Amino acid sequence: MYFNNPMWPGEAHSLKVENILFQGKSEFQEILVFESSAYGKVLVLDGIVQLSEKDECAYQEMIAHLPLCSIESPKRVLVVGGGDGGVLREISRHSSVELIDICEIDKMVIDVCKKYFPQLYVGFEDPRVRLHVGDAVEFLRHVPEGKYDAIIVDSSDPVGPAQELVERPFFETTARALRPGGVLCNMAESMWLHTHLIQDMLSICRETFKGSVHYAWASVPTYPSGVIGFLLCSTEGPPVDFLHPVNPIEKLEGNLKCGRELRFYNSEIHSAAFALPSFVRREVSILRNSPTPAQRICVS
Amino acid sequence: MYFNNPMWPGEAHSLKVENILFQGKSEFQEILVFESSAYGKVLVLDGIVQLSEKDECAYQEMIAHLPLCSIESPKRVLVVGGGDGGVLREISRHSSVELIDICEIDKMVIDVCKKYFPQLYVGFEDPRVRLHVGDAVEFLRHVPEGKYDAIIVDSSDPVGPAQELVERPFFETTARALRPGGVLCNMAESMWLHTHLIQDMLSICRETFKGSVHYAWASVPTYPSGVIGFLLCSTEGPPVDFLHPVNPIEKLEGNLKCGRELRFYNSEIHSAAFALPSFVRREVSILRNSPTPAQRICVS
Repeated sequence: MYFNNPMWPGEAHSLKVENILFQGKSEFQEILVFESSAYGKVLVLDGIVQLSEKDECAYQEMIAHLPLCSIESPKRVLVVGGGDGGVLREISRHSSVELIDICEIDKMVIDVCKKYFPQLYVGFEDPRVRLHVGDAVEFLRHVPEGKYDAIIVDSSDPVGPAQELVERPFFETTARALRPGGVLCNMAESMWLHTHLIQDMLSICRETFKGSVHYAWASVPTYPSGVIGFLLCSTEGPPVDFLHPVNPIEKLEGNLKCGRELRFYNSEIHSAAFALPSFVRREVSILRNSPTPAQRICVS
Repeated sequence: MYFNNPMWPGEAHSLKVENILFQGKSEFQEILVFESSAYGKVLVLDGIVQLSEKDECAYQEMIAHLPLCSIESPKRVLVVGGGDGGVLREISRHSSVELIDICEIDKMVIDVCKKYFPQLYVGFEDPRVRLHVGDAVEFLRHVPEGKYDAIIVDSSDPVGPAQELVERPFFETTARALRPGGVLCNMAESMWLHTHLIQDMLSICRETFKGSVHYAWASVPTYPSGVIGFLLCSTEGPPVDFLHPVNPIEKLEGNLKCGRELRFYNSEIHSAAFALPSFVRREVSILRNSPTPAQRICVS
């Protein structure tokens, strides 16, 4: 039992381990896979649960479809992190997409997921996927301006190697790599535990992105406090109404391309994810730069 | 560390204990109050966390305002359980209310909360409150038909003494005690862990209540899987549109009567709470008896 993780001191969520399937140390982190009795197989990096078979649907579907359903016909998508393949699996439902670049720093995560999480790794088998093993900050430096319609940052917590991914230079680089009216979706911690960090990210993004900046959240039982947040930003250009998906998942023809039904995401959950508890509205000031009056209702 | 609770086998959420403030055994259950390092003071009954100072706002505000904001000018309200006083505190924001009956079986819970949770116990100080210590099933037998506008069931989990509160006779009795177009809000477990139980409750309520029957949920970090659900039912009579509050909290004049701002609930969170993940839609069949087309969109 560990109460000393700096991201959530004083509490711990424990899963009963039936069987340890893999334990190893890559160049970047310690990797553990175990079979739990209640949540199926679980992937742990540096002691922190990254995903479980039971609830990965909530995180992977939301982080992929919140941005991709908010723009018409996304074509070029970049995933930062996401070495388990789950986000790729979800992007592959979008038949408009022509290119999916993924930049994952740790090859061992990919190899381990190939063996133990085939229902996530399946995302890598999409022929539109191009894998780049390396540092995302370095990768983005060489991306032509305006290349992507959407960038999805599926990183681990901002302690250690992922620290850079919540800092100003990284957001500036992603904004540059997006076309006008392109969208960024970034994993953005827990509204119950990390309002200061969320506020910092929002402040930076308000200055960096000239379109709209929003915060959404979803229920994920195996994450600290049982929720995870998403930061959604758009660059200057055609306005993006994040709260009302223009590209609803229910109308996508390639929806079942990855071989399974959506388990968590739907268009109602999409809009509902932007409704924030009153304490979050007060503690986190969200920019009122929504393009429509309907959107303005849903920010504090 | 206990992995054997029948309501959530194979997992445990642990809070670091700074200081044990009270430990005792009432006629009905073991009662524990401790100071945690991350969630403030915590109330535990029979080993199960009932509330923490940090996140009680989500549960108390939702279970009270989801029903009370769904009807015009609620006047007479019954609370079943709720001996901590938090639900009373929230009801007291509604100035239309003239009578708040509360039927709590365990006097010791009330006494302990008076001492350790004054910001919840404050609910008992409202002059409209009438406390009845005893069994709610027995209490309801003597209630005149159609007495209440709203009944709120703030019970513990349906193992042991609260088992009766999820069974058919109890729902029939509450329906009888409600006026035509009156509303019931019942604590209804976790959509991640208890879909069978939720389905059972919904099936019974569909037969018992002739108005509408809906399921809503909220994020509460200290509850199993980080969420709690609410079953909302209305009796035959004036239709109730649970998804679009006719009595929005933002317009209530007595809103701050209990001495503090709302921390979680607002009208957007109200409507968003009815948006269900796709797996819940599939596993739980919800009655499509909504009075308006807008409502129909939000059930599976």
